[in-house]
Amino acid sequence: MKSLTLIGIGTGNPEHLTEQARTAIAKADLILVPDKGEGKSDLSSLRMHLISTIRPLDQTIVSFQMPVRDPELPYQKAVDLWHDEIAGRWTDATQSTSNADNVALLVWGDPSLYDSTLRIAERLDPKPKLQVIPGLTSLQLLTAAHAIPLNMVADAVTITTGRRLADHGWPQGVNTLAVMLDGRCAFQTLEDGAYHIWWGAYVGMDEEVLISGQLSEVCDQIISTRAVERERHGWIMDIYLLRKLKGA
Amino acid sequence: MKSLTLIGIGTGNPEHLTEQARTAIAKADLILVPDKGEGKSDLSSLRMHLISTIRPLDQTIVSFQMPVRDPELPYQKAVDLWHDEIAGRWTDATQSTSNADNVALLVWGDPSLYDSTLRIAERLDPKPKLQVIPGLTSLQLLTAAHAIPLNMVADAVTITTGRRLADHGWPQGVNTLAVMLDGRCAFQTLEDGAYHIWWGAYVGMDEEVLISGQLSEVCDQIISTRAVERERHGWIMDIYLLRKLKGA
Repeated sequence: MKSLTLIGIGTGNPEHLTEQARTAIAKADLILVPDKGEGKSDLSSLRMHLISTIRPLDQTIVSFQMPVRDPELPYQKAVDLWHDEIAGRWTDATQSTSNADNVALLVWGDPSLYDSTLRIAERLDPKPKLQVIPGLTSLQLLTAAHAIPLNMVADAVTITTGRRLADHGWPQGVNTLAVMLDGRCAFQTLEDGAYHIWWGAYVGMDEEVLISGQLSEVCDQIISTRAVERERHGWIMDIYLLRKLKGA
Repeated sequence: MKSLTLIGIGTGNPEHLTEQARTAIAKADLILVPDKGEGKSDLSSLRMHLISTIRPLDQTIVSFQMPVRDPELPYQKAVDLWHDEIAGRWTDATQSTSNADNVALLVWGDPSLYDSTLRIAERLDPKPKLQVIPGLTSLQLLTAAHAIPLNMVADAVTITTGRRLADHGWPQGVNTLAVMLDGRCAFQTLEDGAYHIWWGAYVGMDEEVLISGQLSEVCDQIISTRAVERERHGWIMDIYLLRKLKGA
């Protein structure tokens, strides 16, 4: 593996791809595609569909089985070992192929934002030349779908995870909070009435569902909609933006 | 004006455009292009060049003169009046044209991030149907160019402005800070030795300049490089990411 290109692909809609991403997908000698097993099959087939709009799905598209993170180990230790194992599977997959000089990986959203691919790539030995091609994030597709700005005039924005919001509460001095990776609807732990929420699932895709309003008024609706949609599709990706109401 | 489409175009490289953005540029009845006067002429010509890769630069591409913000008024008041005036100029420009049903505006980066176009659009009366098409932000192009993740594992990220960093210092509880709109190199107000910085100007463009390292070691280099590049191009757009060093 001489070079490794991480290509941000947005949230599954081929129209989200930039020209730069299309070119990189077209030019790679080999594309590694994770096989995450059942349940997320919609996501795998979306990735394959996207590739198929640019090049044939032939022997240059190689799947590798995603390992499972050890749930018994402490979180950071489990993640470290898991990343080692994924790097090993990339190496195995490329070694079984005749031309693997320029390898590409498609990354949901953007490789910079809550994605481990860059950290896994650092484990490769010898190190390939690393190139990152940015893609639209779900956060951008959320604000676009609601037609809202991310920040208020001249103000800051914090991006965090559902776990951090649940464990630490609303961060001090913050007016706008974007929350990702929240499987537990951490927004329900916040004080009633003090926030506006813009929520979205499958943002930018045909399946997109949007809800917005004062948190106290739409909280239950979001929780039940999320459960229904997750059941229906077998997986869900959702994200939300919260803003403190004035005087709160 | 029946509909207004705000199209995020990334940072000036036509390869940053998504398929969705290209389609929207191609389909608009009328494209409004701000004329910001001298000094930012590189930016105006980049925008025109980008349009010219998709459609002819004919009478459907209409410039409007950007008003100047009153420097005597308090900041928020000056911004409010300025936005009113820009909305008025959009209306004037469309009224002098035969077909202005579906109007488009090209927005540098993404319409959600430190951009006023959405706030100006809210002032239009009657209100057109508003559509937002996301584009790559300079923040994504910065992290891609440096091949670094925005966030550390499971941690939060704050996006702020140079003014806020200068006025309020490093925000409490934050490990990663992305800083935009900083004309005064506010990073030099931070404590020496405690931070790593990844800086970039003209990110994603041919003119791209990147510097990274421990803040105390590269601070002066960034300040002088910024001044030289700004002089050379007549304008500069730069951005940086700061991370607290462990133990700091």
